[in-house]
Amino acid sequence: MSAVVLTVGTELTRGELVNTNAAFLAAELTALGFEVLEETCVDDDRARIIATLERLGRAAAVIVCTGGLGPTTDDLTTEAVATALGVPLVRDDASLEHIRRRFEKLGRPMSESNAKQANFPSGADVLVNPIGTAPGFSVRIGKALAFFMPGVPREMKRMFEEQVTPRIRSLSPNDAHQIRLRTFGLPESVVGERLAGVEGAFPGVTIGYRAHFPEIEVKVLARATSNAAAREACETATAEVQKRLADVIYGEAEDTFAGVVGRILRQRGLTLAIAESCTGGLVGHMLTREPGASDFLLLDAVTYANSAKTAVLGVDEDIMRAHGAVSGEVAAAMAEGARRVSGAAIGLSLTGIAGPSGGSDDKPVGTVHIAVAGDRGTELFQRVFPGDRVQIQTLAAYAGLASVKKYVRP
Amino acid sequence: MSAVVLTVGTELTRGELVNTNAAFLAAELTALGFEVLEETCVDDDRARIIATLERLGRAAAVIVCTGGLGPTTDDLTTEAVATALGVPLVRDDASLEHIRRRFEKLGRPMSESNAKQANFPSGADVLVNPIGTAPGFSVRIGKALAFFMPGVPREMKRMFEEQVTPRIRSLSPNDAHQIRLRTFGLPESVVGERLAGVEGAFPGVTIGYRAHFPEIEVKVLARATSNAAAREACETATAEVQKRLADVIYGEAEDTFAGVVGRILRQRGLTLAIAESCTGGLVGHMLTREPGASDFLLLDAVTYANSAKTAVLGVDEDIMRAHGAVSGEVAAAMAEGARRVSGAAIGLSLTGIAGPSGGSDDKPVGTVHIAVAGDRGTELFQRVFPGDRVQIQTLAAYAGLASVKKYVRP
Repeated sequence: MSAVVLTVGTELTRGELVNTNAAFLAAELTALGFEVLEETCVDDDRARIIATLERLGRAAAVIVCTGGLGPTTDDLTTEAVATALGVPLVRDDASLEHIRRRFEKLGRPMSESNAKQANFPSGADVLVNPIGTAPGFSVRIGKALAFFMPGVPREMKRMFEEQVTPRIRSLSPNDAHQIRLRTFGLPESVVGERLAGVEGAFPGVTIGYRAHFPEIEVKVLARATSNAAAREACETATAEVQKRLADVIYGEAEDTFAGVVGRILRQRGLTLAIAESCTGGLVGHMLTREPGASDFLLLDAVTYANSAKTAVLGVDEDIMRAHGAVSGEVAAAMAEGARRVSGAAIGLSLTGIAGPSGGSDDKPVGTVHIAVAGDRGTELFQRVFPGDRVQIQTLAAYAGLASVKKYVRP
Repeated sequence: MSAVVLTVGTELTRGELVNTNAAFLAAELTALGFEVLEETCVDDDRARIIATLERLGRAAAVIVCTGGLGPTTDDLTTEAVATALGVPLVRDDASLEHIRRRFEKLGRPMSESNAKQANFPSGADVLVNPIGTAPGFSVRIGKALAFFMPGVPREMKRMFEEQVTPRIRSLSPNDAHQIRLRTFGLPESVVGERLAGVEGAFPGVTIGYRAHFPEIEVKVLARATSNAAAREACETATAEVQKRLADVIYGEAEDTFAGVVGRILRQRGLTLAIAESCTGGLVGHMLTREPGASDFLLLDAVTYANSAKTAVLGVDEDIMRAHGAVSGEVAAAMAEGARRVSGAAIGLSLTGIAGPSGGSDDKPVGTVHIAVAGDRGTELFQRVFPGDRVQIQTLAAYAGLASVKKYVRP
């Protein structure tokens, strides 16, 4: 069943606000089993609101609209709906009473502009607003059942949940099921190639991709004649996707890469100490965003200056002089130093050149040395990461965490 | 001059992402003097992309579109444009070479699906993408000059600024001028209250707000009969805004709070050492995202475990036992220890409870102690921050940087 989201407001078309209402409604409608064809946002322009409603009334079975129900002169949605339908506005006494009572509670007089909020297109079904002055309403426009709600996010969310959801739930067959997989290690194009043919092999299944640098999320969506059939098709197709991407899938849905690495350390009862240089604290930040990092993380020494590498981690100045701070030798000494100073089971270090300056022919910007030290000795990795400063830092931090994952789970 | 924004992607129509690209483009187009009539988002559906482009080509003078230029099978925008125009796709050799070189730099083979990204509707003007594989392009659709860019925000922003802006600037009467101010320290509602009446006092001026947690960006936009008049009105109104928000404005436009604090340290010739606990490396990460942090940052010791506070910073175990790790006494010892170990001019420390667990009646979740140590002695701050774990860490990191700013610039 198809749905569209319409948001009305010049503050949106001027980009003064990010349109979180549209994202909320799209996610809710998708979860209810609707296919959201389009989200449109128009400014507070009567003719544009009317033309858009007429167009959407031909395109979808459900229209959900927010904004333009307020008391001011630039709130035009209700009038536009009446014009689009060719019906008069009529005052709803119960709504007027509701608005009057809200003002009484606030100890303020109700103005005539607020009384306007009790006007609805003739024949509309009024949607109660328990936490604000503007009631919503529902009408039929073209082939669509259309809902109009205030733009204030908390009023809109409450009204959607209590008033709109019960009215549309029975329309949607809820015939979709989706599984999201999180990957790290391959570019989107290669992930796509590895999954070539999966859509064809599993009818009703579509595969979507989303890049959150440096990760690629893979979404397996199945639609079928029933929810059970959709779930089964989704799970079968997902098993094939997992087989093809086994080396790069690290988790599902809301997992984070640092969270997964932390979980492995916790499960294995291993503590970690980190020595960062070019990543400047990013590895520690990624691990400690997740609750419970104190179970395994003892220390993250961001030894940005060479003197700090010596003072905090005991890195030999001669080694730095001989090989440079960006070298496998120094990375090893940092990881071993972090482990020794903190008493952690595992030491991870990263030293490199994040740029934009500081590179040379020998060690270009993006060069990063990573070391992992532990009972099995010290493992070294060297990479040259592409991108700008923040991308290099991000790729290095991911590679550092991946090195720990590899070390502890051989 | 009218403009519309089109964003393409099923991840958007499913509400999996908030559409920050649309807000960014709407704000930029508004600042360039365009009237943005509509922002539309459609799913990855060829027929819907074509129908929408044809409709928008009748409605506006400029179409700016993002998304659907990637290498995978659900990236359909380029094909849809060619179909809408009734022209074939042709391969652009220079773009193919650009893509091939990017893959060479990454040390990976270029796949056939990436080569697809060098195909453009015949007659298109190619828009270079210096930081990604997908070039953009521009064509005329109906009465509109249309631009197609990748959906990855940083690639899109760079391309809009370098490739699109120069091509559309002359179309707009440019009778608008905008100044953006960055603030930290007050909620949006209070910032709004402080600026009450400014719009009325300066005709043609509108004030917009954008919250990027924990900052509030204030945008002063003036429209007038000429660009010079708009600039003057904007500057006069901005002076009033600056007066009212003097205590919370830290910079303009692209400034970052950490970048501003780093700049002050560099200008004053002061070095910094940090000791973090609950913020887990976030302060270091914020400072080192900006190039040139090595000019002043010597060390960031994320001493997550108490044993690390002692081993790395020399914090007395008795002090921790007596006052707890989350205390002013320990914060002071950490800041002084970081300064002593590294030889830095300024020591900053943060110790607190980021949650969700670990709080008590005495020290609830959100409690953070901050210390700044230097030649003038050690200053202590205590706060209880609201929010979830990441919000508390973010507010604490900002407060830590604010404390350094205050200490060095009395």
